[in-house]
Amino acid sequence: MERNIYLNLASIPDAIGKAQAALNRDALILPETIPSHMAAGRVLAAPVYARASSPTFHSAAMDGIAVRAEATFAAREGRPISLTKGTDFIPVNTGNPLPQGMDAVIMIEEILKDTGQTVSIEKAAFPMQHVRRIGEDIVATELLLPQNRTLSPYDIGALLSAGIWEVQVWEQVRMTIIPTGDEVLDFKDHPTPKPGQVIESNSQVFMSIARQWNCAPSCIPPIADKPEVLKTAINQAIADGAHVVIVGAGSSAGSKDFTKSVIKDMGEVLIHGISVMPGKPSILGVVQGRLIVGAPGYPVSAVVCMEELVGTLVAWLSRRHDRGREVVSVEMARKLPSKLGLEERVRLAIGRVGKKYVGVPLARGAGMITTLTRAHGITRIPTTSEGVEQGTLVDAELLVPQAELDQTLLVIGSHDNTIDLLANELMGRQQPLYLASSHVGSMGGLMAIKSGSTMVAGCHLFDPATNDYNFPFLDRYLPHMELVLVNLAIRHQGFIVASGNPLGIRGIDDVITKKARFVNRQRGAGTRILFDHALQQAGKGPEDIQGYATEEFTHMALAANILTGAADCGLGIYAAAKALGLDFVPLARERYDLVIPKIFFDDPKIHTLLTIVRQETIKKKIAALGGYETTLTGQIMKPGMGLG
Amino acid sequence: MERNIYLNLASIPDAIGKAQAALNRDALILPETIPSHMAAGRVLAAPVYARASSPTFHSAAMDGIAVRAEATFAAREGRPISLTKGTDFIPVNTGNPLPQGMDAVIMIEEILKDTGQTVSIEKAAFPMQHVRRIGEDIVATELLLPQNRTLSPYDIGALLSAGIWEVQVWEQVRMTIIPTGDEVLDFKDHPTPKPGQVIESNSQVFMSIARQWNCAPSCIPPIADKPEVLKTAINQAIADGAHVVIVGAGSSAGSKDFTKSVIKDMGEVLIHGISVMPGKPSILGVVQGRLIVGAPGYPVSAVVCMEELVGTLVAWLSRRHDRGREVVSVEMARKLPSKLGLEERVRLAIGRVGKKYVGVPLARGAGMITTLTRAHGITRIPTTSEGVEQGTLVDAELLVPQAELDQTLLVIGSHDNTIDLLANELMGRQQPLYLASSHVGSMGGLMAIKSGSTMVAGCHLFDPATNDYNFPFLDRYLPHMELVLVNLAIRHQGFIVASGNPLGIRGIDDVITKKARFVNRQRGAGTRILFDHALQQAGKGPEDIQGYATEEFTHMALAANILTGAADCGLGIYAAAKALGLDFVPLARERYDLVIPKIFFDDPKIHTLLTIVRQETIKKKIAALGGYETTLTGQIMKPGMGLG
Repeated sequence: MERNIYLNLASIPDAIGKAQAALNRDALILPETIPSHMAAGRVLAAPVYARASSPTFHSAAMDGIAVRAEATFAAREGRPISLTKGTDFIPVNTGNPLPQGMDAVIMIEEILKDTGQTVSIEKAAFPMQHVRRIGEDIVATELLLPQNRTLSPYDIGALLSAGIWEVQVWEQVRMTIIPTGDEVLDFKDHPTPKPGQVIESNSQVFMSIARQWNCAPSCIPPIADKPEVLKTAINQAIADGAHVVIVGAGSSAGSKDFTKSVIKDMGEVLIHGISVMPGKPSILGVVQGRLIVGAPGYPVSAVVCMEELVGTLVAWLSRRHDRGREVVSVEMARKLPSKLGLEERVRLAIGRVGKKYVGVPLARGAGMITTLTRAHGITRIPTTSEGVEQGTLVDAELLVPQAELDQTLLVIGSHDNTIDLLANELMGRQQPLYLASSHVGSMGGLMAIKSGSTMVAGCHLFDPATNDYNFPFLDRYLPHMELVLVNLAIRHQGFIVASGNPLGIRGIDDVITKKARFVNRQRGAGTRILFDHALQQAGKGPEDIQGYATEEFTHMALAANILTGAADCGLGIYAAAKALGLDFVPLARERYDLVIPKIFFDDPKIHTLLTIVRQETIKKKIAALGGYETTLTGQIMKPGMGLG
Repeated sequence: MERNIYLNLASIPDAIGKAQAALNRDALILPETIPSHMAAGRVLAAPVYARASSPTFHSAAMDGIAVRAEATFAAREGRPISLTKGTDFIPVNTGNPLPQGMDAVIMIEEILKDTGQTVSIEKAAFPMQHVRRIGEDIVATELLLPQNRTLSPYDIGALLSAGIWEVQVWEQVRMTIIPTGDEVLDFKDHPTPKPGQVIESNSQVFMSIARQWNCAPSCIPPIADKPEVLKTAINQAIADGAHVVIVGAGSSAGSKDFTKSVIKDMGEVLIHGISVMPGKPSILGVVQGRLIVGAPGYPVSAVVCMEELVGTLVAWLSRRHDRGREVVSVEMARKLPSKLGLEERVRLAIGRVGKKYVGVPLARGAGMITTLTRAHGITRIPTTSEGVEQGTLVDAELLVPQAELDQTLLVIGSHDNTIDLLANELMGRQQPLYLASSHVGSMGGLMAIKSGSTMVAGCHLFDPATNDYNFPFLDRYLPHMELVLVNLAIRHQGFIVASGNPLGIRGIDDVITKKARFVNRQRGAGTRILFDHALQQAGKGPEDIQGYATEEFTHMALAANILTGAADCGLGIYAAAKALGLDFVPLARERYDLVIPKIFFDDPKIHTLLTIVRQETIKKKIAALGGYETTLTGQIMKPGMGLG
């Protein structure tokens, strides 16, 4: 096995510094001339001096009449004077040149009587009142805008007003993206991936980000994992004028990772490996004066490499100041261990809980693009930290407008498809409410309620002793809290099995006797508690179940294991089986409730949520999923109600 | 004079509310289908459910070897075990399917010895270690993104990974801009405006802003002030599919302001006039279900109308959440009176002064686009306020990245062209320093130093009693402050007169005897003090000078009056005369110094400023302006030095 070894891991600032030292910005990015009216967002390559003044004449600043101020001095409140058209006043509109002999303007609103030929006024005008002077806005030859200025829309107005029809700006950064990999499929072919294959999508994330940066990006179809093919592609990109070339995947230590050796052959490798996770296997190099980037293949690592390395360097090449992201202080909903020696980026779902923002860490796998689509912000755990305790305040860089956070309702707890349905429904309102759900199981939801991290927890915990749902657990774990329980649905739980139920599973005994490969839910999940209860009732234990230790966090993920044959069965809800075309063997009905602390019950977000939950539309949609009953939906639950 | 009258002035929220009630958003903006990879920034018109799972198979999450976890349980530190290729392990790269029979991956970094056929390890693997599970990221059929979601670049990755090649999004808002006015010139003709004419530029400010909003804007050439022409243009825009039509200028109360009556004829006027300044003469109306906007003609009013009315409505039509502007707290450098009953928008130049941000109100004329190009932020003075005292903290919405403020050096005081030169030079550095200058005269600069509003003041105050510059004034007005004075240049002041000096002005006596129309500088300007001194020495007073009361705030503005014939002469610097091709009659040489409080002398921004000032390059550039001497430039001044 021949593999790469990492050079020393570089910090981001060190990596940036090395690249800046190795690139000759002035030789790489050249000035070009473009029409002024198309120049917003571009950066001036030279200072601009005004050609024309604005205005070029003294002019009326208001609609009204032009007067000689002197002729109005006698006017005062209650003692109006009369002025005659032509001699004493001349009507003017805003922008008209000040008529010869006149030196002030009286607003139309201050004219008392108007016969057409005479007007009366009762307030004197002072000299140059409501007059725009020559050059008030712009004086010809004066510096209008300095070099390296990023042009705003307002600047376009100033340029045209000053008679500047063209401007010299720095070229847009031209970026070519080269996806690589024998296993990746071109999305343009609309492929269906087989095992071992993936749809290439990072290139389009890069393209979209680069367009936001006002770059000129382009992308070629994925190329094979062959050094000579990669070399040809890089040479072609440079010949086509790319300032920056990004090679997607192949930057790591795998046996088919050639980016580093190819850059070394063609030019110089500046850094291989950054002390940031995700993002570690990033490469920066220089070939023929161009920046060559080896981006990691995992989508989250790729984004970190793109935003923090390429982004900073593109801003520098463009001579732009980045706006940066808003930063807010959020309270961590969960303990977050972190590795010493690496600066970690953790994606957070963030919502407003009462007066504070709470951040729920999302899954940390670098391969999960959905952790970025679901994230509202990102927090950085420093290299020297072993993690963050639950309840700690951390800074989060926002990926969404802060206003959106205030409209984001966190729902922590058990996963159910009706939660997604709710989330979509709430986005259809005139004032959308954003629902962010974190799937930590029913017990995890109750713990989040206890620590004040959420206003709503989804919960379906069956207590065999009382034959009731949820309340016995609240008494046990949250004894001193005042809580309101609102039912979302009654749902059916059962064994999810392959289509046609090939093993003929009818109950827990079959799972054991037929040695079915089982896939379990995580500890604390209501579904797992239900399964353990069934197991106990059958007089059996975990050791009797093959695959008991294999855990999934959602019904859908569990069902996907059965769909692909990775497992034979697992306990889950009917909706998950139906969605993936699997069979379902009913085991039990249970109550899925929303647990809401009484102190939050009057929060407008909770109010909106419950309004939607109580509408007939949503009940119909829940029922249409199959495996749900809505007889209790939207009702406030009381202890001992069971299934109603 | 037939004029419009304003309806009741509406607040912005009221105006928005009326427009939202009058428009049928669902009928106006329709869904359309576009390729997913081009959809970043667009808004989903329907929820998206995943078509494919990602990954579709259990796969290696790391480069290394796939193993059966069970076979590694004996390994521990110092007690390595050996594994054989093929039976005990199979080499895998990240993304490879987990080989049949294997259930864990060991990272390449944790392999101790590698002979090719055997490897040794000293750490056991746990089941599913470094394995990406089926559907870990995306599960087919699950809700991937809800309706009305603004698609991020990351979402594009998720869409393609989930096999979604096309998405339904809301149409971009199509906006047609119709500039109007008999006096406005089409910038595309590269015109030279005559008195009474202006270059039309607001349309291109609107176009640039609309592009930033991800709208589809278009613009027609300016049309005449004729109701029937405007009617035709609006009808054409609607026929071409515009959702929003913006009529530029003609929204006010002038005799040629037809927008209101035309909208009334064609549909309904919703509001005429908002309680905001600038921006008051804004109109909102509806014609054939489209939003018709009458935008004010003044550029700043036009921007307020565009951003606060049109922007909010476009976001609503687009179903987007605006990111909003960053808000910082700034200390007002000057008292700021405001009118009761109108909510005022005041543009501020903002810089960091020590630990605080200081905001200097820019000129308030709605006709000055440069007050927007020079502004870093905007503060709102509520309708119920009569103004803000100097030193008060106000909120400012930022127009630039906050990081730029920290790199912005305020220079308050006398205006000089060398300050512009410095500003441009500082923008040429690798790490640019932004220089924002406020022209309030030398005395104004000293007052700003006194109140802690600036780290640098430009000052050229001559004291006849001591024949020295600046120091006598510091002793008088800032007696207890430790200050450092650094010379920027010695400059020539004189009478600026028309080319060829037609009145033959050789000195102050000629100005009086030839009854030359004079233009003065504002109170507190060093140049005015110099003129008053010369006047006194000639035994004359203000009453002897025709136009003594006409004030300009900068040398260049003063010179522009002479260029256009609005005045015959004024006192100013040689550079201003030269820049506009005027003649110059020398009167005096004077010292222009930078006054810097000692407590700020070690600030990095001051350090950068002085480094530039002391370079030979800048001295040469100052000398090239003409009328300057650089014998003292960059040197620290001492009392009694005079001109050195």
